[in-house]
Amino acid sequence: MTGTRVPIPTLERLATYLRVLIEAREAGIETLSSQEIEQHSGISAAQFRKDLSYFGEFGKPGVGYSVPGLIACIERILHLDREQPVLLVGAGNLGAALVNYPNFKAHRLRIAAVFDNNYVKIGRPFGELVIEDIARVKEVNAAIGARLGIIAVPAYAAQEVADLLVEAGITGILNFAPTLLRVPPHVHVRNVSLLQELAVLSYHAVEEAACSNGLLARGGDDGI
Amino acid sequence: MTGTRVPIPTLERLATYLRVLIEAREAGIETLSSQEIEQHSGISAAQFRKDLSYFGEFGKPGVGYSVPGLIACIERILHLDREQPVLLVGAGNLGAALVNYPNFKAHRLRIAAVFDNNYVKIGRPFGELVIEDIARVKEVNAAIGARLGIIAVPAYAAQEVADLLVEAGITGILNFAPTLLRVPPHVHVRNVSLLQELAVLSYHAVEEAACSNGLLARGGDDGI
Repeated sequence: MTGTRVPIPTLERLATYLRVLIEAREAGIETLSSQEIEQHSGISAAQFRKDLSYFGEFGKPGVGYSVPGLIACIERILHLDREQPVLLVGAGNLGAALVNYPNFKAHRLRIAAVFDNNYVKIGRPFGELVIEDIARVKEVNAAIGARLGIIAVPAYAAQEVADLLVEAGITGILNFAPTLLRVPPHVHVRNVSLLQELAVLSYHAVEEAACSNGLLARGGDDGI
Repeated sequence: MTGTRVPIPTLERLATYLRVLIEAREAGIETLSSQEIEQHSGISAAQFRKDLSYFGEFGKPGVGYSVPGLIACIERILHLDREQPVLLVGAGNLGAALVNYPNFKAHRLRIAAVFDNNYVKIGRPFGELVIEDIARVKEVNAAIGARLGIIAVPAYAAQEVADLLVEAGITGILNFAPTLLRVPPHVHVRNVSLLQELAVLSYHAVEEAACSNGLLARGGDDGI
């Protein structure tokens, strides 16, 4: 974890501001107030000002924040000031959703190669790419130089894919497989767990229903 | 937010334990130690024991935790002790990945209906379901009684879909669209933001690369 200076919650908020700012730019808006940022990000104006204060001086009183200026700044912090190639592993439905995702380009992210281990799929077109053999990922990435990889394969195959990605030079993995990946300390993993998200929602959704019916919810007495 | 007693980080960890326990059950394993839970969840054995202590007494010294017993307990807390129907909106690639997701059933989640607004898609089969008109979601859910909904539509359509889901009785929304949803206070939203995840990874991935080359990373002097 050496080199990690900006804490993850701050990075997450920066990424959210970046989305809001890119939307504003696409709508032709040149300045935003911290209140407008709050409205579109759900993050308080005070938190926004606090986050930015760590990175220097931004914004003019009564004018607001320059949209292109702030985009450039956040892009620099997140290393998105130049295009970041991304390797995608898994040419299934989820992979198809990812390669067709419209917002990558505005964020300077580009899926540069897609891999699978299914010989029926290898060599076939996938969006604007051609599916490559996962066994060749190191060789392919020697030319691309990507640091970021997305794992969109079943859980049983995810660790093997992670190992191959790490060997190919990937240091940041977005993992959609519902399993814990073991990676060296210099590699960062973010897990997107659909089941975990739904399970948390299930608690709240039913809890709300019970409360609105005046029932005492089970398991709800904990005040941790 | 009335009725919310178990804090979200605890719920997230419970959902992770549940995944590990279900995997163990599928492998025919009947007891797990807290160390084994740690190995498969990435959450420390101490944290696991602490989380469980809030919900009662579990585990036998020298024997470990009963897998079916603990599954039943966590399912009860998360209201997954009976099947939870889920409405899916968006019959695109992401929706297809979701309906074909293999792990729903073991978590007692079931995508009970799928909706779209595209007249070319409405009426067509989608997995084992038939795509229904999003305009009819309230009527359809009157029969299903789902509390959980998944939004897998483009950002520009997401708010309208959220409004329809809330009107149809949904109180928990998993949102894949990169936009902030405005919902009444009794409705919980969890956002899955691919771009945010990749942006956070981008920071770390490039930071690591810079550090391992002995370079000073820009924007990394912040010690918040």
